[in-house]
Amino acid sequence: MARGEGLDGNALRTQRTVERILGESLRLFNEHGEAHVTTGMIAAALEMSPGNLYYHFRNKDQIVEHLFRRFAARVDLDPPAVADAGSAIENLWLYLHLMLETIWEFRFLYRNLDDLLARNRRLRDPFNRILDRKRDVVIALCEGLARAGALHASAEEIRVLASNVLVVATYWLNFQALRGRRDAVSAEDLGQGAYQVMALVSPYLQGDARRHLDGLGRQYVA
Amino acid sequence: MARGEGLDGNALRTQRTVERILGESLRLFNEHGEAHVTTGMIAAALEMSPGNLYYHFRNKDQIVEHLFRRFAARVDLDPPAVADAGSAIENLWLYLHLMLETIWEFRFLYRNLDDLLARNRRLRDPFNRILDRKRDVVIALCEGLARAGALHASAEEIRVLASNVLVVATYWLNFQALRGRRDAVSAEDLGQGAYQVMALVSPYLQGDARRHLDGLGRQYVA
Repeated sequence: MARGEGLDGNALRTQRTVERILGESLRLFNEHGEAHVTTGMIAAALEMSPGNLYYHFRNKDQIVEHLFRRFAARVDLDPPAVADAGSAIENLWLYLHLMLETIWEFRFLYRNLDDLLARNRRLRDPFNRILDRKRDVVIALCEGLARAGALHASAEEIRVLASNVLVVATYWLNFQALRGRRDAVSAEDLGQGAYQVMALVSPYLQGDARRHLDGLGRQYVA
Repeated sequence: MARGEGLDGNALRTQRTVERILGESLRLFNEHGEAHVTTGMIAAALEMSPGNLYYHFRNKDQIVEHLFRRFAARVDLDPPAVADAGSAIENLWLYLHLMLETIWEFRFLYRNLDDLLARNRRLRDPFNRILDRKRDVVIALCEGLARAGALHASAEEIRVLASNVLVVATYWLNFQALRGRRDAVSAEDLGQGAYQVMALVSPYLQGDARRHLDGLGRQYVA
């Protein structure tokens, strides 16, 4: 039994070390950009020998892939299906908040998306599958609202709208950074992002659904 | 007179060398990303000595700033003011094409916008002033269409719409790259980009203006 306990203790210590490496890597990647961080810097920040770090992760790409899988698991959720349009709007609103919070938490992935994905096909293909599914979610949601009489748009308009939803959701935080506003990002900024995305859908909404959205958005009007 | 001619000849040769350096730099930056290109690579591609290149440009940042000023001069145009809504839609369409063509031509600037602007305040502030003016152009254009009865949106809706127009126009080509479609960009892809941006405005348009836009867009429906 003592031996079993010892193994468990080792496994726990290993897991704890892995978590510390991933947490510190994420912090450094987000702060400096992934390209400007080396495994040496990560080890130094953790007061860990490079050898100990390499024992857990062969190289920086492996750390990035690990963090990407966590990001993917967090972001790759469907919004819950609901019966009425009002709840659908409310759910979409919360869902967008969750998406933008996750993008914010893993913002290093978005900072140099082109370079990162061009360099690493193990990220590029899964990232595109996530975007494919997000597009399908947006289309299904709009079609559901259209069937409920809460949204008025053609199939073509919904398809084009879904692309714009993806572009704005993907790049909103980058755009805020560009405009010099990201370092001070707060819950309100994420809310503003969700509002910007909802505003893409808003002009197609009818009646109660639109009024419901206008009510949610009012708090973000400066 | 002979002396004057000699000076002119030198000035022309200098100008021609500067143009060759800028042209080759733009090509290499666009192909490999600015971060992966050195002044040594630019000189080698031109079969020019590094010393000759340094005589014209102190360092790579100076080349980037030069190219940025060309980009800014090209992109920083207002669409012509017009009387009727139909012409306004047509002009906006051509204007968006021109913007996206310019972004495409200087796409290295957009590839790692965050890094490039964070590193160089001499680019960051002018770039943001361009975005400020673009936002003002979009707002003025929408207000004009609203006054002509061709667009129905509140001041708040126009403000939020203008932000989304900037985000989609700024990142459309990056998004295409992400989706693996940029290497094969063509006039149709730029048209699709202009269409995506116009689709943001479209649901707010009324009557003739909307029909006019739908007609322009139809050619981009797959």
